[in-house]
Amino acid sequence: MEGISSEAASLAGHLNLSKLIYLYDDNHISIDGDTDMAFTENRTARFEAYGWHVQQIQDGNDIEAVDEAINLAKADSRPSLIAIRTQIGYGLPTKAGTSSAHGEPPGEEELEGAKEKLGWPHQPRFLVPDDVKEHFETSLDKGDQLESQWKSDLNDYRDAYPDLATELDRRINRKLPDGWEKNLPNFEPDMKGMATRKASGATINAIAGVLPELFGGSADLAPSNKTWIDGTPSFQADTPEGRNFHFGVREHAMQGIVNGIAVHGGLIPYGGTFLVFSDYLRPSLRLAALSGYASITVFTHDSIGLGEDGPTHQPVEHLASLRAIPNLVTIRPGDANEVAYAWKVAIERRHGPTIFALSRQNIRIVDRQDYAPASNLEKGAYVLKDFGVDEPEIILMASGSEVALIVGAGERLAEEGANVRLVSFPSWELFEAQDQTYKESVFPPHIRKRLAVEAGVSQGWMKYTGAEGDMISVEKFGVSAPYQVIFEEYGFTIDNVYRHARKLIEA
Amino acid sequence: MEGISSEAASLAGHLNLSKLIYLYDDNHISIDGDTDMAFTENRTARFEAYGWHVQQIQDGNDIEAVDEAINLAKADSRPSLIAIRTQIGYGLPTKAGTSSAHGEPPGEEELEGAKEKLGWPHQPRFLVPDDVKEHFETSLDKGDQLESQWKSDLNDYRDAYPDLATELDRRINRKLPDGWEKNLPNFEPDMKGMATRKASGATINAIAGVLPELFGGSADLAPSNKTWIDGTPSFQADTPEGRNFHFGVREHAMQGIVNGIAVHGGLIPYGGTFLVFSDYLRPSLRLAALSGYASITVFTHDSIGLGEDGPTHQPVEHLASLRAIPNLVTIRPGDANEVAYAWKVAIERRHGPTIFALSRQNIRIVDRQDYAPASNLEKGAYVLKDFGVDEPEIILMASGSEVALIVGAGERLAEEGANVRLVSFPSWELFEAQDQTYKESVFPPHIRKRLAVEAGVSQGWMKYTGAEGDMISVEKFGVSAPYQVIFEEYGFTIDNVYRHARKLIEA
Repeated sequence: MEGISSEAASLAGHLNLSKLIYLYDDNHISIDGDTDMAFTENRTARFEAYGWHVQQIQDGNDIEAVDEAINLAKADSRPSLIAIRTQIGYGLPTKAGTSSAHGEPPGEEELEGAKEKLGWPHQPRFLVPDDVKEHFETSLDKGDQLESQWKSDLNDYRDAYPDLATELDRRINRKLPDGWEKNLPNFEPDMKGMATRKASGATINAIAGVLPELFGGSADLAPSNKTWIDGTPSFQADTPEGRNFHFGVREHAMQGIVNGIAVHGGLIPYGGTFLVFSDYLRPSLRLAALSGYASITVFTHDSIGLGEDGPTHQPVEHLASLRAIPNLVTIRPGDANEVAYAWKVAIERRHGPTIFALSRQNIRIVDRQDYAPASNLEKGAYVLKDFGVDEPEIILMASGSEVALIVGAGERLAEEGANVRLVSFPSWELFEAQDQTYKESVFPPHIRKRLAVEAGVSQGWMKYTGAEGDMISVEKFGVSAPYQVIFEEYGFTIDNVYRHARKLIEA
Repeated sequence: MEGISSEAASLAGHLNLSKLIYLYDDNHISIDGDTDMAFTENRTARFEAYGWHVQQIQDGNDIEAVDEAINLAKADSRPSLIAIRTQIGYGLPTKAGTSSAHGEPPGEEELEGAKEKLGWPHQPRFLVPDDVKEHFETSLDKGDQLESQWKSDLNDYRDAYPDLATELDRRINRKLPDGWEKNLPNFEPDMKGMATRKASGATINAIAGVLPELFGGSADLAPSNKTWIDGTPSFQADTPEGRNFHFGVREHAMQGIVNGIAVHGGLIPYGGTFLVFSDYLRPSLRLAALSGYASITVFTHDSIGLGEDGPTHQPVEHLASLRAIPNLVTIRPGDANEVAYAWKVAIERRHGPTIFALSRQNIRIVDRQDYAPASNLEKGAYVLKDFGVDEPEIILMASGSEVALIVGAGERLAEEGANVRLVSFPSWELFEAQDQTYKESVFPPHIRKRLAVEAGVSQGWMKYTGAEGDMISVEKFGVSAPYQVIFEEYGFTIDNVYRHARKLIEA
């Protein structure tokens, strides 16, 4: 876990985050024993190298010294590290200064011994002396005063700047401006199509005006992730009004920072990187899901379809592994218009994280006059089109760039007179949130010929294809080649989808 | 990605890895543009803080200076950083020193311009001047000499120390000692049982004598992960004979280091941490799978069954997300004796990584006189027991700590006269590697009443339960409580397994 703290500390130094004060409990003990077994770097020098203000205190029980150091830290314009030498389990007769004081309860004997040693009454078991209680109680008055002052200041502000105050209230209360969604872009039908990452960039810029709280960036991949907000500078120490955050090559810290901003409120933050690098930030994404943080992460280059960068950069197992995280909403939009509604879902989802998986390559933009509206994305899966006049004999389903493949195959089957249902399936979690009636309207239980197409591992798809269905998936790592070559080699062509569907129909 | 490099650099300094020389191509450019946008720390001071030998070169084209610095680095007893100021795309007329030189091909015009500027012939397109060719060819002779010398030294060594030379050959050729597996421990039946992490610790120590190449440790959780090899010290700069590696709180670097040792050969390396922290090291685990490295990772505290540490520490989605990675073998042994064979699989698997998911809590050790031998673990899933005289009417399957639950439920159903098959299912990947005949012998297609029990998300299990089967799983995050309380609350009791099985039988 050291990695993320190093990344964050470097960035905090770069941005001069002067409000940040670390109290480093330097007790020389880790779970394995003395920290000297693995951790002998010069920690204070490292933080100085990050551009931090660094202080050291030799005795953690010297309260005056700690207090003075905190005051100096507050006064400094840099983030501060206060390294405080302490003894873990202070007072425990035999466990003080040992790793067992970290991982184990001290037990009665040690506890009694510590009280003895520190001249503390044995009874009552939990004692708060009156003067301590009184001292703490002064914070109630102090808090009341600070709150009154804040409210009074805010009222003054409200009088002087009514519009800004309304906006501040809106942001603090995490409300969206009325009708903001009218700014979502509409993309014209296009056979050549558009990369969904590009549609995401266009969507960000279409809504950035009406949502001044939208704020984010990329882990050094802004030109690839299309995360840049035009007309506003980079967020830096001397340009805090900037809405574009340069996270550097620090994916893990990025997600932690996005989480932190989401918890703080006032802004709607997003991060961005390649989908394969979701592995780097997974622990913080999990925390967002567990804690209900409204973090948004834009993952682009979402399959073997990214092409030449090869298997190290080609996500194969990532959609499955992200869908496995409870309370995380994963959306892989099927075309540019679905991207706009994916952003709508993410912006409106205030109780948990949302991620997008977006393509590097162009994807056909289907004609929404012929096909169902893209707003159906909000239901997770929807009937994009029913070909034929009778009840469907087969259901073709896909997410992301593979939606264009089932559309192409469906068109061909329809020409041959087949009754075919096409289901665009951008999000399992959004679909699972629908009621049973809706679910069965999309996947009628008696229609068992079902084919799923997704350029990733099949894990979990059987829930929707059923045991009698079929799937075109990727069960091994990718290869380096132009994406058309890889897609052909791995079976992601209209021809191959058509053949699999034909086989199912005729079975 | 900065995180892992920080972790690794700190450890390299601690261990005085003097052979390590980083040439830092300090070109001031990242994909987003100038590194000053996000990366202004004092890099050389940071590496000095790690205990590295640091040099700076102002002009990367000064070959003599680079050569001299490398020689100084070789002579120093510390790892070395040589920070070399360069210009990216040197010579390109307009792209030199810009981020487009990083991410895009230069194109014909830039290429011609660079040749012009550097006084290089335009034709042939790829030119290796004769004197350069001659210079490089001297390395052939040099290599021959070095190889001859090495072979001659090795022969002398073989004459002087025939036994040690045989051992060296064995290790270099990644052969295991004959009969090494006879040292695998056998655990006596025990209703109270044993934590599988404890069985793993016992197995490590049972085979460490016959496998002197076994070498590993934990990311500061050795007492919890039970990864310590007795009778050998910690691996440190002054005790390189030690076989216990203290990785510190650096999970990501740990997996990278284990990968590196596995590629180098001569040792069989393993790492260890909590299963939930597999997220921290996932990128390096993926690389091991992609590259075919024989890395072993011991993950303990493998479900909500870890108890009081709560949801941050309770893996729920991790088995699914690890099983999604191609070429990774995930094993979750059902009792102590399966643990011994899990280690056998990992030790013998030399073309890809293997991980274990082990319990914190005790698990009943079944009596292998009554139940099938634990050696069946090597097949991934096996019939642990058929209760009743007729063909099974239901199959109960489970992995890890939940095997004891299906055993308990199976015993009760058997008392009531039911015909029940119990399948221990420690590894999907090992099972998928079996032939169809074996697979159908475990899961006969016509037996469709199937119940899976695993304390994790259900994703992917339908492949084995079928659409008509049932599963007891965990589809949300855990809670903090003693493990018996959580298991009761989440339905992981013999009673609940019995009830689900009864319902299926009677359906």
